[in-house]
Amino acid sequence: MPQFAQRIYDMEGSAKIIRALFGMMGDPNIISLGGGAPASEGLPVEEVRQICAEVLTRDKRGVEALQYGSVLGVPDLRQAVADVLLAPKGLKADLDEIIIVNGGLETMNLLCQVYIDPGDVILVESPTFVHCVEIFEMFQAKCVAVQCDDYGMVMEDLEAKIKEYHPKFIYVIPTFQNPTGKTLPAGRRQKVAELGSRYDVIVLEDDPYQELRYSGEALKPIKCYDKTGHTVYANSFSKIFSPGSRLGFCYASKEIVTRLFDAKTATNSHTSNFGQVVCAEYFKRGLFPAHLEKICAIHRERRDVMMAALEKYMPEGTKWVHPDGGLFTWVELPGGIDTGKLLPEANAAGIHYIAGAGFFVEGGGAGSNAMRVSFGNVTPEKIEIAVQRLAELVKSKL
Amino acid sequence: MPQFAQRIYDMEGSAKIIRALFGMMGDPNIISLGGGAPASEGLPVEEVRQICAEVLTRDKRGVEALQYGSVLGVPDLRQAVADVLLAPKGLKADLDEIIIVNGGLETMNLLCQVYIDPGDVILVESPTFVHCVEIFEMFQAKCVAVQCDDYGMVMEDLEAKIKEYHPKFIYVIPTFQNPTGKTLPAGRRQKVAELGSRYDVIVLEDDPYQELRYSGEALKPIKCYDKTGHTVYANSFSKIFSPGSRLGFCYASKEIVTRLFDAKTATNSHTSNFGQVVCAEYFKRGLFPAHLEKICAIHRERRDVMMAALEKYMPEGTKWVHPDGGLFTWVELPGGIDTGKLLPEANAAGIHYIAGAGFFVEGGGAGSNAMRVSFGNVTPEKIEIAVQRLAELVKSKL
Repeated sequence: MPQFAQRIYDMEGSAKIIRALFGMMGDPNIISLGGGAPASEGLPVEEVRQICAEVLTRDKRGVEALQYGSVLGVPDLRQAVADVLLAPKGLKADLDEIIIVNGGLETMNLLCQVYIDPGDVILVESPTFVHCVEIFEMFQAKCVAVQCDDYGMVMEDLEAKIKEYHPKFIYVIPTFQNPTGKTLPAGRRQKVAELGSRYDVIVLEDDPYQELRYSGEALKPIKCYDKTGHTVYANSFSKIFSPGSRLGFCYASKEIVTRLFDAKTATNSHTSNFGQVVCAEYFKRGLFPAHLEKICAIHRERRDVMMAALEKYMPEGTKWVHPDGGLFTWVELPGGIDTGKLLPEANAAGIHYIAGAGFFVEGGGAGSNAMRVSFGNVTPEKIEIAVQRLAELVKSKL
Repeated sequence: MPQFAQRIYDMEGSAKIIRALFGMMGDPNIISLGGGAPASEGLPVEEVRQICAEVLTRDKRGVEALQYGSVLGVPDLRQAVADVLLAPKGLKADLDEIIIVNGGLETMNLLCQVYIDPGDVILVESPTFVHCVEIFEMFQAKCVAVQCDDYGMVMEDLEAKIKEYHPKFIYVIPTFQNPTGKTLPAGRRQKVAELGSRYDVIVLEDDPYQELRYSGEALKPIKCYDKTGHTVYANSFSKIFSPGSRLGFCYASKEIVTRLFDAKTATNSHTSNFGQVVCAEYFKRGLFPAHLEKICAIHRERRDVMMAALEKYMPEGTKWVHPDGGLFTWVELPGGIDTGKLLPEANAAGIHYIAGAGFFVEGGGAGSNAMRVSFGNVTPEKIEIAVQRLAELVKSKL
C-alpha cells in the first residue's frame, strides 16, 4: 500500500491517546470519569422533538433543513450567536464575522488549514487539551508549553516564549480549562490579547465551558480586549445545547472568516442544516436561558458532590482544583503514584479517568501523578462510589 | 496579521470558482442550472418529521441523537450502508470498514489527510469535479488530467500517466460523472481497479449519483473489482436522503479506516449523531426503496425535459451528453463561444450555469466552449424556459 503522509507519523503520539479516549466510551461496566460529555439527563430531548414537530414541514423549514445551505451557516443561527451568546459579553459581531462549524473542535482544524505550515509553533497551556494537540500535530505544528500556575498561563513566560519561538498561535482555554478546571483572571486575559496584537500572533481562544458557571463572577472573553483582530473566538453548542448535533461557531475578523470559508468548503462544504435549523429555533423561541439554568443546576450538584467526595475519601497529600464551572477537575496524587500505570487497576475496579501525562506536550514525566476527572455525565451517586473506590486504590499504593 | 499557510495560496484558483458557485445559490431572480442540488420537491420532509416524532424521546433514541457518539458513526446506519447500499452491489463490508462522514466530500478531505504530502500527484478525469480539485489543492497535491473520451478515462493514457507521475491517487467519478454525466463502462472499471493494485495507487472512487439511474443497466462499482484494498469507495446520502443533513460514508480496508478514524477525530470528532439516527431509521423502516423510486421519477422527467429542450432550441453544432442518471449534462457550444465570457450576459438574462473551463486542471483553454448544466433542482417548466433563453443568447453570438 502507498505510504501515509508525513503528518500521520507526526500525530501518532496524540492520536493514540485520542483512540484510547474514544475506545473507553460507553462500557457499561465502568464508571467513567474520563469523557468530556455533559449530563445526558440535561439534554434538551423534549425541546428538540417539539421543534422538529413544528418546523419540519414543507411550508415552514423542512426544505431548508434538508437541502444544501450556505457555507457560513444558517443566518438565524448566526444571528442567535451574535445576539444571545456574544452581545451580552460585550462582543458586537457582524453576521459575516461568524461561521458555524461541525462541533467546537472544527474551528481549530480550519484555522490550522488557514495558517499552519509544517514546523510552525503553537504555544499551549501546560497542561492543555490533548485532542487539540492531535489537531495541531496533524498539521505538523510544533506545540510548545507555556508555564502555568494556579490561574493559568504565566504572562512573563508567555512573552518570553513568544520572543523565543515566534509562534503562529497562542492556544488558550481561559475558562474552566480542559483538563484542569482553572480560570484565567481578567488582567491576564487583557494581557494575552495585547501580546497577540503586539507580537502579531493569533490568539486562539477556545471557550466551550464558559456558560457553565456554578459559582463566582463571569469574566469577559479575551476577544473583548482584542483591538487588532488577532484573537479568534472558538465556541461550541455541545455543552449548552447538544454534543450529538455537532455544532460550534467561530467569531473572527472578516479577513480570517473569508479564508475559513475556503477551508470549510474544502473540508465538508457546510455544517448540517438539519441541526442548525433546530438549534436556531431553540434560541429564537427563548428556550436557552431556562435550559442553561437547568443544566447548570445539574452540573453544579455534580461538582459539589465530586468536591465533597474528594475531601472525604482521598488520602492526605492529594491536591485538586475547585472549578467554578465546566466539567472537569484535576487531581494530583501523593506518594509518587503514576496515574498511567494505575489506570489498568482502576479499570479493573470499574473506574476510568484520563491519566495526566498525555496533557503535557513537554513530556519528561510532567503530570505523571495527575489525572483529569470529569463529573459531567456521571450521576451524583456514581461520583461518590467512583471517588471512594479510587481513593481505596490510591491508599493501597501508599 | 500573520501570513497564511502556503496551501491557501496554492488553492486560490479553485477556491475562487467554489466561492462563485456558492455565491450564486439562492438568487430568486435567476433560474440556476449551476448547482448540484437534487430536487427540493423530492426531499423526505414528511418522513423525517415522522421519524423525529417517534424516536426523539428519552426512552427511545433521543439521548443517543443528542449526546456524543462514536467516531466511525452510529452502528445501525453503518449496518444500513452494508446491507442496503453495498451488499446489493456485491460489496460485502464489515462494519469497521465503514466510516460515516460529514457529507460525501469529507471522504476526499480525510483521505488526503491520510495520504497526501505536498507535491504528491493525483490523477483526475478531464474534466473533473472542481470542488474536489479545491480539496486536493488545499493539500498541495498536483492534479494531473487523464485524457477522457465519451465513456470517461482512456485506459492507455491512465496507465501512461501512472508510469510517468507515480501518483498517490486516481480520482474517478465513474457513474453519471460530475460535470459531464458520462458513465465509465464495466471493462474500464475492472481495468482501473487492476491498475491501482498493480502500480500501488489508491483508486478513490466517488460514486454519489450511482443510485439515481433513469435508464440503462446498473454497473458494478470499481470497488467490486478490487482484490488488494487499493480502491476506496466514497459515497453520499445527499442525493438519496438529504444534502442538508451532511451525511456520507466511506468504505475502505480496515488499515485505511483506522487512519481515517484519526483524521476524523482531528477534523471534527465525529459526524452529527442527530442526522445519523434519523437517517438510520429511514433505512431501517424500509422507506428507501419507495423514496428512491419517487426521486428517480422526478429527476428522470427533468432529464427528459432538458434533453428535449436542448434538441428543440439549441443551434446546430451544439453537442451535449445524454446521461443515464445523475443531475448533470455537459453542453458544448459551436462557433468558438466562450462560456465564461457569456456568463454575465446569461445571468443578466436570468440564467446561471457553470462555465466549463474551471473543470479542467490542465487549463490552456480546455472546456472554454462548454458548460455544466444541472436539471436536479429546477422544475420542468423552468428548465424549458432556461434552455430557450440560453439558446437565444447563444444564437445571437453566432
